[in-house]
Amino acid sequence: MALRVAIAGVTGAVGQEFLRILQERNFPATEYKFLASSRSAGKKITFLGQEYTVEELKEDSFVDFDIALFSAGGDRSKQFAPAAAKTGCMVVDNSSAFRMDDDVPLVIPEINAEEIRNAPRNIIANPNCTTIIGIVPIWPLHKANPVRRMVVSTYQAVSGAGMSAMQELQELTKDALAGKDLQPQAFKHPCAFNVFSHDSTIGENGYNVEEMKLVHETHKIFNDSSVQITGTCMRVPVLRAHSESINLEFENPMEVEQVVDLLLGAPGVEVVDDRENNYFPMPIDASGQDNILVGRIRQDESLPDKRGINLFVSGDQLRKGAALNAVQIAECLV
Amino acid sequence: MALRVAIAGVTGAVGQEFLRILQERNFPATEYKFLASSRSAGKKITFLGQEYTVEELKEDSFVDFDIALFSAGGDRSKQFAPAAAKTGCMVVDNSSAFRMDDDVPLVIPEINAEEIRNAPRNIIANPNCTTIIGIVPIWPLHKANPVRRMVVSTYQAVSGAGMSAMQELQELTKDALAGKDLQPQAFKHPCAFNVFSHDSTIGENGYNVEEMKLVHETHKIFNDSSVQITGTCMRVPVLRAHSESINLEFENPMEVEQVVDLLLGAPGVEVVDDRENNYFPMPIDASGQDNILVGRIRQDESLPDKRGINLFVSGDQLRKGAALNAVQIAECLV
Repeated sequence: MALRVAIAGVTGAVGQEFLRILQERNFPATEYKFLASSRSAGKKITFLGQEYTVEELKEDSFVDFDIALFSAGGDRSKQFAPAAAKTGCMVVDNSSAFRMDDDVPLVIPEINAEEIRNAPRNIIANPNCTTIIGIVPIWPLHKANPVRRMVVSTYQAVSGAGMSAMQELQELTKDALAGKDLQPQAFKHPCAFNVFSHDSTIGENGYNVEEMKLVHETHKIFNDSSVQITGTCMRVPVLRAHSESINLEFENPMEVEQVVDLLLGAPGVEVVDDRENNYFPMPIDASGQDNILVGRIRQDESLPDKRGINLFVSGDQLRKGAALNAVQIAECLV
Repeated sequence: MALRVAIAGVTGAVGQEFLRILQERNFPATEYKFLASSRSAGKKITFLGQEYTVEELKEDSFVDFDIALFSAGGDRSKQFAPAAAKTGCMVVDNSSAFRMDDDVPLVIPEINAEEIRNAPRNIIANPNCTTIIGIVPIWPLHKANPVRRMVVSTYQAVSGAGMSAMQELQELTKDALAGKDLQPQAFKHPCAFNVFSHDSTIGENGYNVEEMKLVHETHKIFNDSSVQITGTCMRVPVLRAHSESINLEFENPMEVEQVVDLLLGAPGVEVVDDRENNYFPMPIDASGQDNILVGRIRQDESLPDKRGINLFVSGDQLRKGAALNAVQIAECLV
């Protein structure tokens, strides 16, 4: 059976990760089409031993295609995804354009794969990286013992801002080591040897968009808006894996052993919690991995009745935080 | 009047910062003596236009000295500080050796300067860097509206592990940029482009010593052990300023404006909270500064009745986190 897959934004950091993951997982496509902005059109890409020419993303790019993986930014998704969907193509969109639309499912396959069936607009949204990496490990705990409140502080890689940001981290780090003045372009602040508040728009309440995505997307994916969530999203000088320090308050007492047991049996998660050797999740270990690493699992003694648990997680921002999750959605569609 | 000051551990990262700060603040000493381990004895130091020879730290090093600033590690403090104190010298000790002793005051001058009078053993302890940087901005809030619970996640510079760690961050970063294998020595894990759990001993409850210091030292300094505290201490690729994401739960409602007002009037604190320009505390800005930068001041909407506030702080680990606080204590002694 023919299965035609188009990738919009193929030359970006997530687009390139799409190619790696589709190859690794032997995605059963029979035909591929690679799309990008006019700037990148004409570039050659070798994939599975075949040479492709990147074509310009247009409204009619998707005729006769079955699945479109979009990671070309929110504006391009808004412009081209509906046209693709209208031709009957199923769109898996990595941008924030449609995530909170009522008639667009927002899916992490480990949590709510069944929602994929309810996509009347032929669009399925991929959640934000920070949301995915934080809540894949929380879900099995929440099912066993409802999470009442989450306090999250992030340690985010620069990859979320794209390839140019990854290059900037390397270039500015070289400049800093050479004692040069730092001239940031991808970010407002120098990312070398620094930590800064996430580079998304800040709302009336003082929270940036990244922090509010964590709140709203978690509510939609858990189908439970009673979970109280507050987040502080920060960038750190790390290339491609996000980490998060997560404090959880449960409805009922929760033992550390119970958390470890639930996580050991959970899909998409790897427990890395070796207290004796001080070995816990680290972004350099999470990079290039499919699983989200979880450790520093401790009773939060500041809450009564063992109702609190602290965790620390690391997950590859480009893989499970973006391209892998989208390909997993596409696999469910197939 | 003669005022003789000895510095134990003068060749270390904090020792060198002592010299800068004593000079900057025109500390009214009439005589200095510089001490270090036998390994560093004989080194020359030029200070205030005068050349000094570093002497080996010994039990009789402090005869006729009035104040000793110790930053030579806990073991050397345990060995030599009591001998110094016995000669009548007042010891300000930067190690963890005496911090929790009942008859040793643990002092942050902005918070509990009056405790300096109660030092029957002639030893005053300087708190841990993470504690100082976190709680200097919390104290004015706690006085106005008692803090019931704190959830803290840290972004700690490598300087807390000494000069060799600062060199290692630079060397391993160069190696990483050159694609070389990373061979960490100062830390167990590579610090370049990575985040890892703090390199202190982990206790039965899964918390490392750094995290427990934050709990116990805060209780002692606030003279209030009812404040519930949980921490997650992480190292980030930053040279010399610690940052902390702090979630506070208050006894009574607390408005953002009230927090800003209290912090604007607080000693040792600078509010950096420019939402419009996305400009908040950053370790590169805090480095070399005396004040602790505080920003990202937001209502925590996950708690009812406006009882929650989120903050992000950055402070120089070697200055207010260590040497500056100790010199401020010494100034109170004078």
